Amino acid sequence: MDDKGICGEHEIDVQVARRIAGGGFDQTVRYSAFAFVAYVCGVAGLNIAAAMLIPMVVDMIDGNPDWQVFLTAAVCIGFVCLALVFAFGGRSVPFSRRLGFLTVNALWVTVVIFAAVPYAFSGLSLSWADAIFESVSGLTTTGSTVLQGLESMPRGLLLWRSLTQGIGGIGIIAMSVILMPLLRIGGMQVYRMESSAQEERPVARFSQFASNMLLLYGVLTLACAACYALAGMTPFVALNHALTTVSTGGFSTYDTSLIGLGPGVHLVAIVFMIAGSLPFLAYLRALAARDIRKAYDPQIPVLLGIFAVLSVLAFIAAPSHSGGAGANFALMAVFNVVSIVTTTGFATSDYLSWGPMAVGVFLIATFLGGAAGSTSGGLKTFRLIVMFKMLHLALREVVFPRGVTSVHYGGVRMSEQAMRSVGVFVITFLAILLIETLILSATGLDIVTGFSASLTALTNTGPGVSALIGPTGNFASLPEIAKWSLAVTMLLGRLEIMTVLVLLTPLFWRG
Amino acid sequence: MDDKGICGEHEIDVQVARRIAGGGFDQTVRYSAFAFVAYVCGVAGLNIAAAMLIPMVVDMIDGNPDWQVFLTAAVCIGFVCLALVFAFGGRSVPFSRRLGFLTVNALWVTVVIFAAVPYAFSGLSLSWADAIFESVSGLTTTGSTVLQGLESMPRGLLLWRSLTQGIGGIGIIAMSVILMPLLRIGGMQVYRMESSAQEERPVARFSQFASNMLLLYGVLTLACAACYALAGMTPFVALNHALTTVSTGGFSTYDTSLIGLGPGVHLVAIVFMIAGSLPFLAYLRALAARDIRKAYDPQIPVLLGIFAVLSVLAFIAAPSHSGGAGANFALMAVFNVVSIVTTTGFATSDYLSWGPMAVGVFLIATFLGGAAGSTSGGLKTFRLIVMFKMLHLALREVVFPRGVTSVHYGGVRMSEQAMRSVGVFVITFLAILLIETLILSATGLDIVTGFSASLTALTNTGPGVSALIGPTGNFASLPEIAKWSLAVTMLLGRLEIMTVLVLLTPLFWRG
Repeated sequence: MDDKGICGEHEIDVQVARRIAGGGFDQTVRYSAFAFVAYVCGVAGLNIAAAMLIPMVVDMIDGNPDWQVFLTAAVCIGFVCLALVFAFGGRSVPFSRRLGFLTVNALWVTVVIFAAVPYAFSGLSLSWADAIFESVSGLTTTGSTVLQGLESMPRGLLLWRSLTQGIGGIGIIAMSVILMPLLRIGGMQVYRMESSAQEERPVARFSQFASNMLLLYGVLTLACAACYALAGMTPFVALNHALTTVSTGGFSTYDTSLIGLGPGVHLVAIVFMIAGSLPFLAYLRALAARDIRKAYDPQIPVLLGIFAVLSVLAFIAAPSHSGGAGANFALMAVFNVVSIVTTTGFATSDYLSWGPMAVGVFLIATFLGGAAGSTSGGLKTFRLIVMFKMLHLALREVVFPRGVTSVHYGGVRMSEQAMRSVGVFVITFLAILLIETLILSATGLDIVTGFSASLTALTNTGPGVSALIGPTGNFASLPEIAKWSLAVTMLLGRLEIMTVLVLLTPLFWRG
Repeated sequence: MDDKGICGEHEIDVQVARRIAGGGFDQTVRYSAFAFVAYVCGVAGLNIAAAMLIPMVVDMIDGNPDWQVFLTAAVCIGFVCLALVFAFGGRSVPFSRRLGFLTVNALWVTVVIFAAVPYAFSGLSLSWADAIFESVSGLTTTGSTVLQGLESMPRGLLLWRSLTQGIGGIGIIAMSVILMPLLRIGGMQVYRMESSAQEERPVARFSQFASNMLLLYGVLTLACAACYALAGMTPFVALNHALTTVSTGGFSTYDTSLIGLGPGVHLVAIVFMIAGSLPFLAYLRALAARDIRKAYDPQIPVLLGIFAVLSVLAFIAAPSHSGGAGANFALMAVFNVVSIVTTTGFATSDYLSWGPMAVGVFLIATFLGGAAGSTSGGLKTFRLIVMFKMLHLALREVVFPRGVTSVHYGGVRMSEQAMRSVGVFVITFLAILLIETLILSATGLDIVTGFSASLTALTNTGPGVSALIGPTGNFASLPEIAKWSLAVTMLLGRLEIMTVLVLLTPLFWRG
């Protein structure tokens, strides 16, 4: 296989592909690879340090002493990262596939640790397990929390939680749109093919593309905040929830999530959770062409169909179907299904009390995920489509073994390798789900808590389907070792599993 | 792809492959296809009717009026089937792939219905849902039961249950060794490749092979019965358990399975459950060559490793590790792990009371299954090996996208299509597992019962991991609709899923 075939013929794709395809990993480039990773982590750390100044200001206004924590953290991290940038910046390094994997992993670990510092040193005096858990859960836009009594917490810390989800959301889109297809992870090359096969390229240059994406993301978040405020939230609460809605994160400033906040807030959340779960490239294409039809992506109708079917099933499972209660349950069914499928994790009801069928519906909903190229996690809609087509192909082949058959996605024929990537991804997903379930059960968690905690972490969703960690539950009471392993699982899920696993192969480190 | 490449160059393979590959499905062959299916079902029904005479004799000796049920059933089924054989026998029909699928499905459904007749009309007066459930559970060698108070049940019916598992075991081996590789289901072509790639073919002709297999199966069952009798069982109980051990079925003549029957019985069960979970072709190869080394199959060391690792984990999960109790738990850990991984489903302890980790271990053990070409269900060892190799290949490709890489199994290079088959199988397995979980949860079962009932049915294991349907539980109290859907799931699992799904595609029925 050659990269040209995969990436299409557009100038920037080929350019980047050539840089990534080239370059070995021998002794001489080892140091410059390390230098590059250190430089990138430094730049990211500077951004994190700068972001810490926002909650610092809020805490200063509120007179909360935590502002010193944010300031100290920002200064320390800032200095270290400045040193990294000055020491290692300005070198040219042959960009290789392996360097890409190293950088992505190092970047996430570094940012997670930096973002955990305010939690660890705040007035809450969290353990490092709790601080790292909350930091990973925020940055991966999972939304599981170990914090209780959010209503009485300093506003600076609440905003920091929401900000980590906003930052995470941007990072995820950038990673999934730019990096994953080139690294050929879990069939993502298909999605790349699909998007680069459009006649009109959405953006001409990388930096232009990045700034367009940032702008779009910011506008969506501000629009969401404005709508929340119109629906009755205070500006601060509205901003927090906007940051965690568009990023499909799911952190709330209330222990009870969105329960009891009124249908206005719930409708706003539904709209922007869906907005956050659709492929961002589709928006950019439509905006660049000023033509809504350019936003078409095969994932969109399928994802909307999934919302519809599961909402109907959840409504059937709901306890009351008549009169005002029925309408109420209908909204709750739609909301909670959208929340789980988009891997946001907000709740407007303790749906686990609706009965066994609701538990089944929401357990299955947790697997699916939103569109590739969005902030959602899970298996992702494009993989669901490809899997369905692979099943159809397999059944065709079984009947007509000599027929020439193939699978097309977005008008482009899929390679056997890309299909195999999807298969391997799902199999590995299942294996890690079970291994993490076993680890959690060994820490003493019951099987429903263990399995659904493992699943909700791997899909970056948030709530599980047991009372302890459900929509009205909390991860605070879990054993420390469970929190550490869940933090690793959240990262694995966010990095499409293979990005991390590849570092564990001896091959990767060989010369 | 051509069939020659898949099946190797041995005369019988090519011969059979040619017959299967040839033949369309146009109007003129439709009638002869129907006739062939009816003929095969008639022959199978005659065998079932003949088998019913065995429990009839036992009930006559015991003076139990159920002998009339067995006799009536045998006579009625016998007449109908004789009519089918006479009406439709002796025609030549172009054997096609589609005819193969039709025949396998029709055969299983027919035999299941025939075998359910004695349950439905016996003194127990079971509903048809219960009768079919017990019949499917027996013939698919699952071992889940809806009967309670087995100790006080007529011996004829107990023997009928055990006989269905013995018959099912033979049918499964024949199907997996002869038919599945030719129908190319779920990557089974690989296993075929592997076995036919041996220099020495185990048997020269099909009928010779079939009689050798029957003989081996019979000898193993009798040896198992003799060992059970030596370990203290009465001859009748020993024979019943031998029939359900070698077939990895798991029906017992006691409500409490093997709990409390002593270490001698448990050791015999371990040995013969393992014997039943290894590829039968390996035995035949070794016997034909009179050389134990010919029995090598890549699955064997991996399967033994799985037993070892999971036994250690189960032992760690067990509540007491010291003195006599420790030794007792060690044996129970090995026994119950072997029982679940081989998909037998006997129990020597209520391991669910050992704590959450034991539940996790036994839940994961339920997925794995024994070797392909044996009576075990589940994902099967050869697929586990192939999946691991596919993961390794994917990680290699991610680092070296231009390197020429491939996966070998049993010394033969796997085609992309075969690997994709494995991926599609596992994905479809997961999808059906979740859909059946949803159906069961809609009938009101809690999520642990629903998920593990779905899993245990799809893998043809037997017990779930909730108290209701666990090692000391029973499926009797489940809603009727749950029993029907579980019966379908057991058949799906036994027929490697795709064999049934292919009938649901419009393509299959097109001219």
